[in-house]
Formats: sequence, structure tokens, C-alpha cells
Amino acid sequence: MATRIPVRNAFYAQSGGVTAVINASACGVIEAARKQKKIGKLYAGRHGIVGALTEDLIDTSKESAAAIRALRHTPAGAFGSARYKLKKYEDTPAQYERLIEVFKAHDIGYFFYNGGGDSADTCLKVSQLAETLDFPIQAIHVPKTVDNDLPITDCCPGFGSVAKYVAVSIREAGFDVASMAKTSTKVFIMEVMGRHAGWIAAAGGLAAEQAGDAPHIILFPEITFDEEKFCARVKQCVEKYGYCAVVVSEGVRNSEGKFLADAGIRDAFGHAQLGGVAPVVAQLVKSKLNYKYHWAVADYLQRAARHIASKVDVEQAYAVGKAAVEFAMKGHNAVMPTIVRVADKPYRWKIGSANLAEVANQEKMLPRDYITADGMHITAKARRYLAPLIKGEDYPPYKDGLPQYVTLRNTPVKSKTGKSFVV
Amino acid sequence: MATRIPVRNAFYAQSGGVTAVINASACGVIEAARKQKKIGKLYAGRHGIVGALTEDLIDTSKESAAAIRALRHTPAGAFGSARYKLKKYEDTPAQYERLIEVFKAHDIGYFFYNGGGDSADTCLKVSQLAETLDFPIQAIHVPKTVDNDLPITDCCPGFGSVAKYVAVSIREAGFDVASMAKTSTKVFIMEVMGRHAGWIAAAGGLAAEQAGDAPHIILFPEITFDEEKFCARVKQCVEKYGYCAVVVSEGVRNSEGKFLADAGIRDAFGHAQLGGVAPVVAQLVKSKLNYKYHWAVADYLQRAARHIASKVDVEQAYAVGKAAVEFAMKGHNAVMPTIVRVADKPYRWKIGSANLAEVANQEKMLPRDYITADGMHITAKARRYLAPLIKGEDYPPYKDGLPQYVTLRNTPVKSKTGKSFVV
Repeated sequence: MATRIPVRNAFYAQSGGVTAVINASACGVIEAARKQKKIGKLYAGRHGIVGALTEDLIDTSKESAAAIRALRHTPAGAFGSARYKLKKYEDTPAQYERLIEVFKAHDIGYFFYNGGGDSADTCLKVSQLAETLDFPIQAIHVPKTVDNDLPITDCCPGFGSVAKYVAVSIREAGFDVASMAKTSTKVFIMEVMGRHAGWIAAAGGLAAEQAGDAPHIILFPEITFDEEKFCARVKQCVEKYGYCAVVVSEGVRNSEGKFLADAGIRDAFGHAQLGGVAPVVAQLVKSKLNYKYHWAVADYLQRAARHIASKVDVEQAYAVGKAAVEFAMKGHNAVMPTIVRVADKPYRWKIGSANLAEVANQEKMLPRDYITADGMHITAKARRYLAPLIKGEDYPPYKDGLPQYVTLRNTPVKSKTGKSFVV
Repeated sequence: MATRIPVRNAFYAQSGGVTAVINASACGVIEAARKQKKIGKLYAGRHGIVGALTEDLIDTSKESAAAIRALRHTPAGAFGSARYKLKKYEDTPAQYERLIEVFKAHDIGYFFYNGGGDSADTCLKVSQLAETLDFPIQAIHVPKTVDNDLPITDCCPGFGSVAKYVAVSIREAGFDVASMAKTSTKVFIMEVMGRHAGWIAAAGGLAAEQAGDAPHIILFPEITFDEEKFCARVKQCVEKYGYCAVVVSEGVRNSEGKFLADAGIRDAFGHAQLGGVAPVVAQLVKSKLNYKYHWAVADYLQRAARHIASKVDVEQAYAVGKAAVEFAMKGHNAVMPTIVRVADKPYRWKIGSANLAEVANQEKMLPRDYITADGMHITAKARRYLAPLIKGEDYPPYKDGLPQYVTLRNTPVKSKTGKSFVV
């Protein structure tokens, strides 16, 4: 005689800026959910919480096992992501009532939300529906952010792969400039993401293993940009090593606290600045030192670069997705699986748990002792922390020279509320 | 009784902008030369022809077989490259006399020069020393250029890997933007190299295999930029697909024939130094269509990206290096090994030969029938040509998450002329 298990459906969505491995988390959630008898259908929200509000749901059961497995090696958000934050219940009760309407209509008892700090706040608010509006739901947050700025977890899925891309790229560009410097380009500047915290810029530092290796200089958002000090260091590098490779975070600010990229400076071509700090720094190098320069802005290439993803990152992204489902099955609510570092060398990690209330809207900054005293490189401590996160390669399959990323069928679920909702 | 073989030394150097696989050609030259009894030492010029003029030679025999083998997977120029072009004999006889002085002093009978069109001209001039100055030397050019603009050869080593990088990157970024477009970025613009010819931009088109795939628009240097037509197409894509991904060549010009992003700076060859057309196009999208945009400038990252090199490209780069030595052993002078396409599908190629006089200072432009009638994408014919060149992956070895590229010892050869020379 089988015990009757109460079966409820689940909701999963992707939120905020996407990463090279957020779909690996989706893969972890879906594969784990498919094994659970207590979970009926797993519906994905199209474009994050927007999909829930507009009842724009995707029936993931229509996807083959092979397609779901392929999510593990596919970058970006297979169900569409969104930059959309729920306001407080008091301010927008209609949104919460709508969520409950949709969840009730589709018998959703499990809510998995895959995002960063802002998204954790949304997930927390949904988790509170159980109490505030007497709607039984378990909300589990699945961590994701290239910015690596979520608290409690040792690192954030998505970060390791950007870190690897940045370290590999600056190493390669460094080799390039080193060979050209005698008669041509002497200074190379690569702009990377990280508006508030310098985690990604710091990762570039991993490429420098020996004295003289690129990058020679890292400009962090945490350190006020000092034009004179920077130029002096560039000059020193060019004189000593023949060239200078620089990683600059998009979030670098001047002494007035203004982003260099927004500081009203004109770029190398005399055009008003259009959002790149690299050309601003390049122009400075030209005007103050008269060195020939090149610059790159990696932008989305860095966070979409599944072709050079970190194996550790892929494994962790998958693991937090899987763990989220397991947490739900254990009856948890308002929690987030975390990565707990067990050892640095050899690197070992396990899954832990954090209360969402302690995660939402918190930013973990790069510790000052991860940055050298001169403010222009990373310390041994930073290296010890960062190095394991880029370990291992996890290549996607290729066909005719191109990576084979999956595009899901994304079959819509029929509306049951019969109502539309404007977000 | 062994026949006495006249043994002479060889000179090899790298010239012009480096690539992800120029060292694979170096590997091919050195490994082949080591097998030849007629070749004594192989000296590399530090920084191209500058190394010959300044008698700054490197003794490659001091490098281990493992180090030379590692060149095959190491990007950039292991001996240093240079942007330096020999002038006509009549204008600078002293340079030619100096070359002969150095070559005589080191008994150099074979000259291998690894570069593009400008470098082929240098190689041709050296090959003429035999006649004009009665100095016996065989000069063989080893083709290399990411621009793919050398004539006669079907393709140029270096191009296939940039092509692969660009196609992979725009595919990945396309997935990213597609997931964000609902509430955030709708237009993504990636700038790629290609000052005069749109080969690299065209390669981005390979990522678009089905209707709606990124990139949706390619802006070629061959097609005059038409603001209205471009904006209309961007709008159409956003309305149809939800987003628009654009590949733009750095060499795009307006109706006045001016580069959209002309820095007004010239490089050592006297070419305008470009960079930064992506932000110009992005700003246009913002001001005319008011779509949220992101842009990337790949710059050196694209040509240094050995981590995602094309296997076909690596094999061809190695093969032309090896063939150059074989040509020399056969007594050839003033020639360049070429890639001859035998079949498209399955792709087959072999090594051919071109006279340097027909190669130097010639540019092979992207044929008009490789570009669609509307001027904004590639045709099936272009796809048939390009597709084989990005085939296969040839990953470098990794340690602790980073590619292990070799830095040679580059042991200097003692000066024999006892004279310095200012270039």
C-alpha cells in the first residue's frame, strides 16, 4: 500500500543579468525535479518573475531529457531573464495578489528563483506569501551572479567562468602585446565588468604568475583612480618589461566619486564618452605618456563565454540547482543553497544553506587585503581564494566548428486565470 | 662515402600583427629545419627584420624540443614581431648592405619571413639580394594574417582562428541578449578587426545558421554605411526577434569615405589606427531608436585567442612553416607556400606555391557576391568558403585553469659584425 504523496507543481525562473552557467543551474533544478514524486509539473516563467505575473509559463515537461541535459553546456537564460524587482507588499498589493492567483491556478507549491542580490529580494518576498497572504509556497533562491557579490556563499555560480575568461583573455592579449611592443602597441587596456565590486577585475590578476606577466596593473572600483600614480606605473612597466597590460573595472571612479566612464571625458576619438572606461584610460596613456595603445571592452562576451567556462563553476551551478529542489523536498522555505569552501588546496567544497533574509540586497565587497598596498594588483590571499574557482575546462560539444547550444521549444502553458496583467 | 652537403644557417622572423597561430608556423619551420642536414643553425630575428638589421639574433637551437613543440599551441610572436617595412634599395642602400653584412657574418643562406602583405614585400626585397647585391640567399615567405587578404592562397593562417573566435563570441552574446531583451538590452554591437576587407566581419555570419539567429546584421568595410537603412533593419529585427545582434568591422566608412571611428592616428606602416566604431554605432541606435544597447570591442582578444583556435587553422599554419623549409631545400627563392582548396565538403586542402612578386602589397578583397544584396549579411557562397576554416578545436594544455603558453629562453647570438645599426 503506497502512501499518498501530496503532489504540487513547481515554478522556476531566471532573473537579472545572465551568465555562462545559469542554465546549468536550470538543468540541476529540472533534472532533480523530474526525479521527485512530490513535484508534478515544473513550469518555467518566461522572463523571470514577469512570466509569473503575466501568466506566461513554459511547460518544461515538453522538453526532452537530451534538451535539458544540453542546458548544462548552454550559456545565457534559456527561459528568458528579466531585470524586474517586486516592490513592497504595501506599495503594490495587486502584484502579490496576482502572483497568488497565478500560483493557485497552476497549483504551484515550489518557487525556485535563480538570480543575484536583487532577485533574492524578490524570492524572499514570495516566500513571505505563505505567511502574509496565507498561501502555502516554499521559495528557494538559486544563487547566480557574475559579480560574485552575494553574502554568505563562498562564491557565486557564474563568477568562476567570467573569472576564467578574463584571466585567459588578458594572458593571451599580454602575449600579443609583448610581441608587438618593440615597434608598435606598448599599452593594452581591457575593460571588464563589476560596477560596484572588483571581483572580476581581481580575477584577471590570476594570469600574472611571475614577475613581468600580464596583467601588470589592475584598476579596481574599490580604489580611487589616481592618474599620476597610474601613469607612473605604466611608464615603469613599459621601461622594465617593454609593455604594459592593464585590466580596468568598469566601475573605477575618480577622486570626486564619479565613474571615469561617465566623467564627461571625451574618448580617444573626440567623441563624447559612450560608456567605456577603457578608451578613457587609453587616451590618458596617449596624452600623458605618448605610448601607442590598444583597448578592448569585453562586455557581454565575458559573461556569455560558455566555450571557456570553468569546470568548477559549471559543477557548482548545477549543484545549487539540484540542492534547491532537495531543500524544497525537505520542507525548507526562504533559503538559498550556498557554496561552502572546505579546503583551498586541493580545493574542496560542499553545499550549505543561507537564510534569504540575510542574503537579499546585501553586497559582498572585495576585501581590502585582497588588493596590494599600492592598490594596483591582487595579493597572495586573493589568489588563494580565486584560483580554485577557474579550475578545469568544461567544453561544450561542437559541430562544424561552432558550439552547439540548445534552444528549447519553450511550449507555453494555457492560461487558467483568463486574465491579463500589465507589468 | 657520404656526399658533402653545403651547410648554411637559416634566419626566421615574425612580422606585422601577430596571430593565435603564427607560432604554429614557427614550430613548423623550426621542426622541419632541425631535420635538414643542409641547415646548420636556425637563428630567429628578434622583432622581425629589425632583429636582422640590429644583429639581434636568437639561437633557437638552445630551445628544447618540448619548448618548440609548445609553440604550436602558444599565441602571439615568440620571438617578437615588428611593424617595419624595408624601403626600396635605391632609397636606403645602407639597410641592404647591413643585412648582407649580418647574413654573411652568420652564414645565413635561408631567409624565412612570416607575415602578411607588407612583410611579403620585405621578403621579396631580401630575395632580390641574390641578384642585386650578389649575395646568395633563398627567401621564402610564410603567410600569416588575420585579415585573410593575401592573394593566391585560398586562405591565410591566422584568419581561421579569428573567424572562429568571432563566430563563437557573437553566438554566445546573441544567446545572452536574447534572454535579456524583454526588460533590458535589445541591441548588441560587437566590433571586430578588418581595416580594409570584411573577411573577419563576414566570419561572424557563420553563427547565424537559422532565421533569427545572431548576428542579424553585419556591417562591412566594403559597403558604405547607410544610417537609415541600418536603423530600419535594427528596428525590424527587434520587432521580429525581440533583439538585434550586430557585427561591425572597424573599417566601416560613411558616404564621404571616412571611417566611422577614425582616430586620426597612424601606425608605423602609415595606416590609420582604428578602434571604437562600436560605441559610435551604439550611440546611433540609442539616439535614433531609443533601444537599450551594449557594445563590445574585441580588439587583440580576437587575434590572440589561442584557447579557441581553429584546428584547421593550426594545421595550416604549421604546414606552411614546414613547407617553407622544404621549398628552400628544393632550391626555391622568392616564393610563398599557399593553401590550395581541393574540396569544400568534406573540406580538403593541400600546399601550393606562389611567386612573391605576385603576393607582395596585394590585397584580396571580400568578393561582392559573398555579401547579400542588401549589404548586411553573408551569402551561401561566403558560408561555403568560410565554414571549413573554423572547423575543429585544438585546445592548449591547461594548468590550474589557465592555458600553458610557452615563453622561450630566446638566447642571444653573439655579435659577429661588431657594429651597431640604428633602425
